[in-house]
Amino acid sequence: MTNKLIIYDSTLRDGAQALGISFTVEDKLKIVNKLDNLGVDYIEAGNPGSNPKDLEFFERVLKLKLASSKIIAFGATRRANVSVEEDANIQSLLKAGTEAIAVFGKSWDFQVTDIIKTTLEENLRMIYDTIKYFKNHGKIVVYDAEHFFDGYNANPEYAMETLKVANRAGADTICLCDTKGAGLPSHIARITGLVRDEVDCAIGIHCHNDNGMAVAGSIAAVEAGAVQIQGTINGFGERCGNANLCTIIPNLQLMMNYECIPAANMEKLTPTARYVSEVANIIHDERAPFVGNCAFAHKAGMHADAVNKNTSAYEMIHPEVVGNQRNILMSEVAGRSAVMSIINMVDNTLTKDSPETKKIIERLKELEYEGYQYEGAESSFELVIRKMLGKYKTFFELKEFKVIVNEPTVNSVNSSAMIKILVDGQTEITAAEGDGPVNALDKALRKALERFYPRIAEMKLTDYKVRVLDSNFATASKVRVLIETTDGQDAWTTVGVSTDIIEASWRALVDSVEHKLMKEN
Amino acid sequence: MTNKLIIYDSTLRDGAQALGISFTVEDKLKIVNKLDNLGVDYIEAGNPGSNPKDLEFFERVLKLKLASSKIIAFGATRRANVSVEEDANIQSLLKAGTEAIAVFGKSWDFQVTDIIKTTLEENLRMIYDTIKYFKNHGKIVVYDAEHFFDGYNANPEYAMETLKVANRAGADTICLCDTKGAGLPSHIARITGLVRDEVDCAIGIHCHNDNGMAVAGSIAAVEAGAVQIQGTINGFGERCGNANLCTIIPNLQLMMNYECIPAANMEKLTPTARYVSEVANIIHDERAPFVGNCAFAHKAGMHADAVNKNTSAYEMIHPEVVGNQRNILMSEVAGRSAVMSIINMVDNTLTKDSPETKKIIERLKELEYEGYQYEGAESSFELVIRKMLGKYKTFFELKEFKVIVNEPTVNSVNSSAMIKILVDGQTEITAAEGDGPVNALDKALRKALERFYPRIAEMKLTDYKVRVLDSNFATASKVRVLIETTDGQDAWTTVGVSTDIIEASWRALVDSVEHKLMKEN
Repeated sequence: MTNKLIIYDSTLRDGAQALGISFTVEDKLKIVNKLDNLGVDYIEAGNPGSNPKDLEFFERVLKLKLASSKIIAFGATRRANVSVEEDANIQSLLKAGTEAIAVFGKSWDFQVTDIIKTTLEENLRMIYDTIKYFKNHGKIVVYDAEHFFDGYNANPEYAMETLKVANRAGADTICLCDTKGAGLPSHIARITGLVRDEVDCAIGIHCHNDNGMAVAGSIAAVEAGAVQIQGTINGFGERCGNANLCTIIPNLQLMMNYECIPAANMEKLTPTARYVSEVANIIHDERAPFVGNCAFAHKAGMHADAVNKNTSAYEMIHPEVVGNQRNILMSEVAGRSAVMSIINMVDNTLTKDSPETKKIIERLKELEYEGYQYEGAESSFELVIRKMLGKYKTFFELKEFKVIVNEPTVNSVNSSAMIKILVDGQTEITAAEGDGPVNALDKALRKALERFYPRIAEMKLTDYKVRVLDSNFATASKVRVLIETTDGQDAWTTVGVSTDIIEASWRALVDSVEHKLMKEN
Repeated sequence: MTNKLIIYDSTLRDGAQALGISFTVEDKLKIVNKLDNLGVDYIEAGNPGSNPKDLEFFERVLKLKLASSKIIAFGATRRANVSVEEDANIQSLLKAGTEAIAVFGKSWDFQVTDIIKTTLEENLRMIYDTIKYFKNHGKIVVYDAEHFFDGYNANPEYAMETLKVANRAGADTICLCDTKGAGLPSHIARITGLVRDEVDCAIGIHCHNDNGMAVAGSIAAVEAGAVQIQGTINGFGERCGNANLCTIIPNLQLMMNYECIPAANMEKLTPTARYVSEVANIIHDERAPFVGNCAFAHKAGMHADAVNKNTSAYEMIHPEVVGNQRNILMSEVAGRSAVMSIINMVDNTLTKDSPETKKIIERLKELEYEGYQYEGAESSFELVIRKMLGKYKTFFELKEFKVIVNEPTVNSVNSSAMIKILVDGQTEITAAEGDGPVNALDKALRKALERFYPRIAEMKLTDYKVRVLDSNFATASKVRVLIETTDGQDAWTTVGVSTDIIEASWRALVDSVEHKLMKEN
């Protein structure tokens, strides 16, 4: 008898419906790899019929070799009075080529008659036909019973009938959705128990957090017999978000003895949560259970003392178990083993106990305290290590730069940068115009360097991200700039931090250029 | 038979133990007034024995004329082997002069023997003596059974005995504390039910959010018979916070038919939550249930359409009930109905078929093609509509700005901005220095405007986000800047797009300032 539960991640689909989140295809592919690495069972990745961006994504994602996760495409039941063969969305779902498909349909009579405006009978046929069609094509089918709990409250017979139809059509899992996020956990548990007596397939749960109880609702459903939990990393999602898998997984696995992900992967939870926040460009919630910086921070004198006497006095679990740390303001989520692997890239004779390693870790803590974060910007961290270990050659020295921005523009150019650098005793002074100050500075620096290092011309900046670190001071707060660069062969990411966006961009630019020069020399 | 529950706010005591929160005496007095205005029953306001700041506070707070709330002082049971008369903290609690006192004591045998290092018998006497003493002095006494649920798991007989002792000593309420925040709601409900059978006074519940279920745990306790709920505004508190009263109150009162606060005060919930965030200088959580900006925001086309057909399709309650408002988000998937609701905010005579509507939608498409995205930045979109419909007054005109960034810095300032604006025929030219060009420009603009519009000084920028739109051109690609602003009362978000980050920031800044000016004039 196993306690294995099925973790179904919808960060890339329902999560992407959150305010302020918009993933590129590249972002989605990176997150798929992280989720696979964490060991979730399903990755719900979008609706292939909705737009060309999603179609491209499905073509590319199915070429990835995933170790643990199945990609699942998501779409509605067929439209009313249209056959599955003629329904373009159904055909797109099939064409996406995934092994598994999630079909959502209506379980609330009001939604059938008043929102999609069809008959209750036709809605049952829509559910049956769609599931049956995909089962005939050999797919694993998850049926998402949208608004199930509201539907059950309004018309329990009809709501239950939609599930029985899905069950008869061969759905592998029937997922009960609390779409409005109003479900009281005790109510969810009771209804889930009733459903368990009516259908003979697996039961899933999909909660939203409008009442602040999505995690509790999901867990109540598991207590009542649900075996698949749908949610998102960091609880990203519409309105108040979806059930937060970063809270649900450790609760179920560490406190309640279920198996959600492989035990060895549990320490990847905090790094994964942070990574997804970073890619989504959403400030990570530091008060989040398990994966926030505050989760194991102790302030009250009495509590801090008690924790020093015995950590179980005020902590549910050891923070290391979920890849987090006790009592730290700045994160060091990479973990010492990740840090060692970069140190060993530069010098493979160093061990955890080498004095150099200790110095590097001290320096890392200082830099993280300043706002640097090297997760995803290992090239910058490698440069820090090289400089500390004397394994770095100086390629150029900045003497001065000046950037000027004009409004209104002068001859439609608004920014110009002057730069003066020193290379092997020779001074180069040059200038460039650009669209904005960072672009002008980037062009001026590369122009100055090309005379000495012609392969700089191969570099192309592919992404530029800015994150404000302390929002209480808004435009005067620290910013962290991440720059992604490629030279056609490799891609690398560098980071810069400053209260000034130009200075932060400059630092990331310099690291990017230095990485390229180091690589070629 | 009344369903009245007792709301016990601990924002000023347990909430103040959160990382990054430190209230002055003035802050605390302001928050007391807001909480009284909201109508909570108890305001736990600190430990008068802990420091002189708290002593001063108690002197001043008892002079306030409160309409609904009782101030309650908080402190430990007497120390081991010291009489209540000789215990300085007990005497400070008495001297504070409040009508009600919360006494916390140990219910977990491990905490007694290993943390405070006394005998189990002496701990029972400490509880009894302290409560009895305050009852003899005519106080209302709430007994906080710290770590009760962990204690019950470890040694149910002893944990229950501590409560029986408190009951015998005359405690008016016995509050069960889930101090570590690990309590599973179903477990809390079961144990609360057992306690209800053992004591004959009122039962309270005090949850922490380390497992992400503090709200659900509190509500589960109420379902099992608890009548007093302890929590904090916005869930502020140590580690992952306390049970969030802004989530609990509407759940209990609007969804479950209990009475927590006077019905007429419910609409003060969102303003109170924002006010407390503001005073605590913590960024308000916009994803928070009921009181966040996202709580009633709709992005996906289908959902936005459904909400326009009938708000109950995707909303638990009407946002106005809790003093919040609906946000319909623009996005590639949002339908025309989302746009209509903003158009109708400006002019409610326009319909889908009005020629003005068609022009606005054309303009929206152009702007979206340029890279604007109004999802989450409705204030900017409202300005576009107002300008198109002639419902906008020009507050100022930009004549010129120039921003200069220097490296190395000059007297440790790296950026300066000169600005010239025209207001009602008068020219104002001024300059400011800043940390980075955007900060310098922001300061210069507001400095120039303050002479004409003094209320500009109330504005505070709370977030600044940058997104690159077309990564293939990196630093020369278009950037979208989102700026969040608050004036203490409201929060709004504006957007600017340009290939130049300064220009994009400028546009978002101008919209933010115009929104504020429009609001005040």
